[in-house]
Amino acid sequence: MRKRKVAVLGATGAVGQRFVQLLDGHPWFTVSAVTGSERTVGRSYRQGCRWVLPGEMPVWAGDLPVLPSELGIDAEIVFSALPSELAQNLEPAFAAAGYQVFSNASAHRMAADVPLLIPEVNPDHAVLVERQREQRGWSGCIVTNCNCTATGVTVSLKPLLDAFGLRRVFAVSLQAISGAGYPGVAALDLTDNVVPFIEGEEEKLQAEPLKMLGHCDGERVTPADFGISAHCNRVAVSDGHVVCVTAELAQPASADEVIATMQAFVPPQVVRELPSSPPQALSVRRESDRPQPRRDRETGGGMTTVVGRVRADSLLHLRYVVLSHNTIKGAAGGSLQNAEMLLSKGLV
Amino acid sequence: MRKRKVAVLGATGAVGQRFVQLLDGHPWFTVSAVTGSERTVGRSYRQGCRWVLPGEMPVWAGDLPVLPSELGIDAEIVFSALPSELAQNLEPAFAAAGYQVFSNASAHRMAADVPLLIPEVNPDHAVLVERQREQRGWSGCIVTNCNCTATGVTVSLKPLLDAFGLRRVFAVSLQAISGAGYPGVAALDLTDNVVPFIEGEEEKLQAEPLKMLGHCDGERVTPADFGISAHCNRVAVSDGHVVCVTAELAQPASADEVIATMQAFVPPQVVRELPSSPPQALSVRRESDRPQPRRDRETGGGMTTVVGRVRADSLLHLRYVVLSHNTIKGAAGGSLQNAEMLLSKGLV
Amino acid sequence: MRKRKVAVLGATGAVGQRFVQLLDGHPWFTVSAVTGSERTVGRSYRQGCRWVLPGEMPVWAGDLPVLPSELGIDAEIVFSALPSELAQNLEPAFAAAGYQVFSNASAHRMAADVPLLIPEVNPDHAVLVERQREQRGWSGCIVTNCNCTATGVTVSLKPLLDAFGLRRVFAVSLQAISGAGYPGVAALDLTDNVVPFIEGEEEKLQAEPLKMLGHCDGERVTPADFGISAHCNRVAVSDGHVVCVTAELAQPASADEVIATMQAFVPPQVVRELPSSPPQALSVRRESDRPQPRRDRETGGGMTTVVGRVRADSLLHLRYVVLSHNTIKGAAGGSLQNAEMLLSKGLV
Amino acid sequence: MRKRKVAVLGATGAVGQRFVQLLDGHPWFTVSAVTGSERTVGRSYRQGCRWVLPGEMPVWAGDLPVLPSELGIDAEIVFSALPSELAQNLEPAFAAAGYQVFSNASAHRMAADVPLLIPEVNPDHAVLVERQREQRGWSGCIVTNCNCTATGVTVSLKPLLDAFGLRRVFAVSLQAISGAGYPGVAALDLTDNVVPFIEGEEEKLQAEPLKMLGHCDGERVTPADFGISAHCNRVAVSDGHVVCVTAELAQPASADEVIATMQAFVPPQVVRELPSSPPQALSVRRESDRPQPRRDRETGGGMTTVVGRVRADSLLHLRYVVLSHNTIKGAAGGSLQNAEMLLSKGLV
Repeated sequence: MRKRKVAVLGATGAVGQRFVQLLDGHPWFTVSAVTGSERTVGRSYRQGCRWVLPGEMPVWAGDLPVLPSELGIDAEIVFSALPSELAQNLEPAFAAAGYQVFSNASAHRMAADVPLLIPEVNPDHAVLVERQREQRGWSGCIVTNCNCTATGVTVSLKPLLDAFGLRRVFAVSLQAISGAGYPGVAALDLTDNVVPFIEGEEEKLQAEPLKMLGHCDGERVTPADFGISAHCNRVAVSDGHVVCVTAELAQPASADEVIATMQAFVPPQVVRELPSSPPQALSVRRESDRPQPRRDRETGGGMTTVVGRVRADSLLHLRYVVLSHNTIKGAAGGSLQNAEMLLSKGLV
Repeated sequence: MRKRKVAVLGATGAVGQRFVQLLDGHPWFTVSAVTGSERTVGRSYRQGCRWVLPGEMPVWAGDLPVLPSELGIDAEIVFSALPSELAQNLEPAFAAAGYQVFSNASAHRMAADVPLLIPEVNPDHAVLVERQREQRGWSGCIVTNCNCTATGVTVSLKPLLDAFGLRRVFAVSLQAISGAGYPGVAALDLTDNVVPFIEGEEEKLQAEPLKMLGHCDGERVTPADFGISAHCNRVAVSDGHVVCVTAELAQPASADEVIATMQAFVPPQVVRELPSSPPQALSVRRESDRPQPRRDRETGGGMTTVVGRVRADSLLHLRYVVLSHNTIKGAAGGSLQNAEMLLSKGLV
Repeated sequence: MRKRKVAVLGATGAVGQRFVQLLDGHPWFTVSAVTGSERTVGRSYRQGCRWVLPGEMPVWAGDLPVLPSELGIDAEIVFSALPSELAQNLEPAFAAAGYQVFSNASAHRMAADVPLLIPEVNPDHAVLVERQREQRGWSGCIVTNCNCTATGVTVSLKPLLDAFGLRRVFAVSLQAISGAGYPGVAALDLTDNVVPFIEGEEEKLQAEPLKMLGHCDGERVTPADFGISAHCNRVAVSDGHVVCVTAELAQPASADEVIATMQAFVPPQVVRELPSSPPQALSVRRESDRPQPRRDRETGGGMTTVVGRVRADSLLHLRYVVLSHNTIKGAAGGSLQNAEMLLSKGLV
Repeated sequence: MRKRKVAVLGATGAVGQRFVQLLDGHPWFTVSAVTGSERTVGRSYRQGCRWVLPGEMPVWAGDLPVLPSELGIDAEIVFSALPSELAQNLEPAFAAAGYQVFSNASAHRMAADVPLLIPEVNPDHAVLVERQREQRGWSGCIVTNCNCTATGVTVSLKPLLDAFGLRRVFAVSLQAISGAGYPGVAALDLTDNVVPFIEGEEEKLQAEPLKMLGHCDGERVTPADFGISAHCNRVAVSDGHVVCVTAELAQPASADEVIATMQAFVPPQVVRELPSSPPQALSVRRESDRPQPRRDRETGGGMTTVVGRVRADSLLHLRYVVLSHNTIKGAAGGSLQNAEMLLSKGLV
């Protein structure tokens, strides 16, 4: 397969940096361009970007010039780490100009003809891009990945929905700092502290899983027919969102049945073979006190969803804890995996 | 009123230190004795106790000798910060010997004739001590306060139960380190991390509020008739437990009605006048991102329960966040307030 | 004594909030005005200020309108928590207009006719305001307090300089987050991390103590004749700067002599009687592992300098650790105490 | 080369776990045995060891039985992560019985005939094992690596000593939690806090570098002829010790000369080719605010010493910051590298 030229829009931010890091040595993609804000345009990525990830900026990336986030970039595929307000207009412009846009922004996620994808969950929704191109008259497209907190929750719910059906899901998150970008949360707000609120997050966590877990007839998605209640907290963790999930199933199941079902969960072959897919999509731990962000977030290179403490609930059927790496599987890594899947399916 | 001599059992531990700190300058009580483990007996409290609280050990306390936790102590009232396994036998022995025992241990909380008290919530349960004395042939008694996480949840539920009734309560906690005593949790477990499990905590949080919110006919308590589902997490906060509560009411109510009900909550006069009672039992904040442990835990000297983010839930009726200082209101301060109440009511 | 009207410039920032907090109930001062940035002007302080300190905003403060930082404010004394670049021109304008300006900004600290004061250290430098008024033709004046890290170091060096003389001082700091204001340091920079650099801080810590410990002949200050080497680190602590000091004395002294000298340190009567002066200016702890920020920063209401680990050095004479509350004694509290002193001396 | 059987003594502790982790897939060594305390003996390593490192316990390790730390183990080489008080007698017993002991314990580090080694610093000291065997009549030997804080300091001083000579070194550390093992430091001691003391640490940091930087004539080591003053602090960082170093050189040098000298530092070929040797022994960063533990500790797989902020000091010649991963290069990784070196030199 010939390598595709890809660009990263908004490459100097925290998620943009993750894109660059994960694209280092990628077998299918070569980064041909990075874009940034006015302040950084014209400088090299090395000079324009304050690298905040552990480890070094890849040398090749440091040499790239930071371009403005405008049409005309030499790339087929565009990864967007743009702020949502910029993504609103820019991403359609790129798609109309023929770029295949894989976006981490929330701006277009809920649009009827925009696929909102987690390869392990709803690979069949990818065909929406054809309807999108047709309806909008685009040669490019926009494909989105979901909110970082919704990611792990949705992956963990998928086998439950398939096996037992779902009625109601209560989700309370303990979210990492990196989800707010850089500089993001003030250190004074999280030293010896918890912030029990994240702007706009609960709405996303209540809506996005239903679209992804819904039925796609090739033309449109019918959202899944259950309810989610979400409460989102920020805690002093660098990476890795933890969510406490309580679930009412359509058909009762014991904790052991749920564990067995989760352990048996295997994505389709085409998904398992993507370069960014981890050995295990969903890992179930049996210790009493796992998953924990610092110890488990790197499972499967940050692409595996880790579940633990699966047990019967005292009121509903089921209770468990789910952990997902919010800037890898929940952001840049997930978007990259989406691009791989659409390429693999011949949809881009 | 003559000052009562009080002893603190297990005074060298973290909760024991809080008892000593809160008893400094107390208008009704004088500390006549402190007890500790074998290792510390015979030394002065200053030498035997590694003081871990902010601020200084009171000078008078430092001069006290550490005694063994045995009968024969010169005191009328005994505050117990003993580990539960020691409390199991020692507290009844003290009560049988005529001491009035106010215990923070979990050992006897659920016994039918032992009052489990939060003065603002169930002051009428205090009379159980009379039945306890009669049944057990004791001149002393055991009075308990509840689990530190249950404290804030129960105070916040009290006005809701009274006004609207309760069906189901889902509680997910983000608990402070000091709840585990000292040394307690290892720093390696909470640096850049969350631990989604606390031994034995969920069971207590599911059971104790029901006893306290139940009906006492003077002889026995009929537990409140609703269900609680609890998930407990440990986070990197020194003091102050945060709990995210989702509630199904018996009779629907809007967020505004709930806020008004909580704001109108006033404990009985006899409770409000206790030395340890705060100006406000329950404070409702209206900012989007409060309560927060570091900024709100000292409200009312650590004795006020702080609620925030009261809002309609997407699935049930109601959702809010509650914060309570776990080693003050949730432990030593609550126990002290209980002793004040029983003294004030002439029950000790 | 009649109460003076005081204003707080830059009252919505972190240091401004400390001024407001410490002025609550002040026996000599009444806050008549608060000023803020353009964004907040015209709103009430309650609405314009995001209160980030533990505890509540005083009710009277919340009712004040936020004014622009301009002349015409109804106050005699002005506390400045302005950013240094604004302070550069604004503070002289206020002083020229007759306001007595007590500034926490660095802009004018090193000017020859501006007193840089710690009441316990160099109260005699206060007379420089007379020269300042004469030279500049002002009826008002500018009085500054020093950098927050320099504060504790200077207080601890004062008795040493007096008793033994000083040759060289090596100071390595572990500084709290609040020193950078709010939002200040990003949480991502201090989670599981240390930042070994603070812009401009080492220069201040190397220069300011020498001015304060210098000789003032009433007209000018001759800086103290010793050298300081400073390295400044940021650590994950909310309040309280720790500095590790190694000192070469002019005249050798044992650790015991140094401890005795520090313990005997008593500021002049006029300073001890100021409302903001703590019972002890300098406290020496004898435990092996103190002072610690969370446990010792509130000593003397945050106005006491706490020293510990005084011991012989392996290369020079002396080594110790000093802790000072950076936003109380090291900022708003120190400035307030300076105003009290000048008032008490009849200099304002 | 045939693979050697190696055992890890004290394998269930934090450093023991690092040994197991780093030995996973090692090209020269196969772990044939792990030992643990009485409590864990007889269980599998999976059951006896509470794995506290990020990532998974290697599967092969989980299957090993935990043996008592006694002679008779089937191994040629023994890595000791024993507590120092156990190491005192056990390590000589193993060496006498013919085992080649590579110890992370401090018990024998300063013995005249025990090599204290950092391969990049003093590979020539390795020959002391021959004298040790001869003197003690052992077929095995004891080889030690140094204190984790001394490691980075010593590596960074090596090129300076060679190029310019050293007179005096002032070192102030900000040390990670993992240096104290597990459970180690209490979370209550490091939440919103710093502890300015670590038992026994300053003595080691003042003595060990001098032995390693001393001259070995094949029979004995003459310590380096300069002085070190050390102050050690514990901060809320999981891994990675930061040390602020101020140095007086024998022969003055500019910061640029020092940087050039450090950058030119290359260990001997035999050291560079060891499996555990990193691409760069010493990395010099030029940003104003690096090295930082979370962002730089994994450099070279945790085996590279990272220096930054090299600059002229205001009193002596030189000032810089050095970072070293305390449980990799500063403990298990360093010990492993020592074993590789002695094997490579034919000394074991």
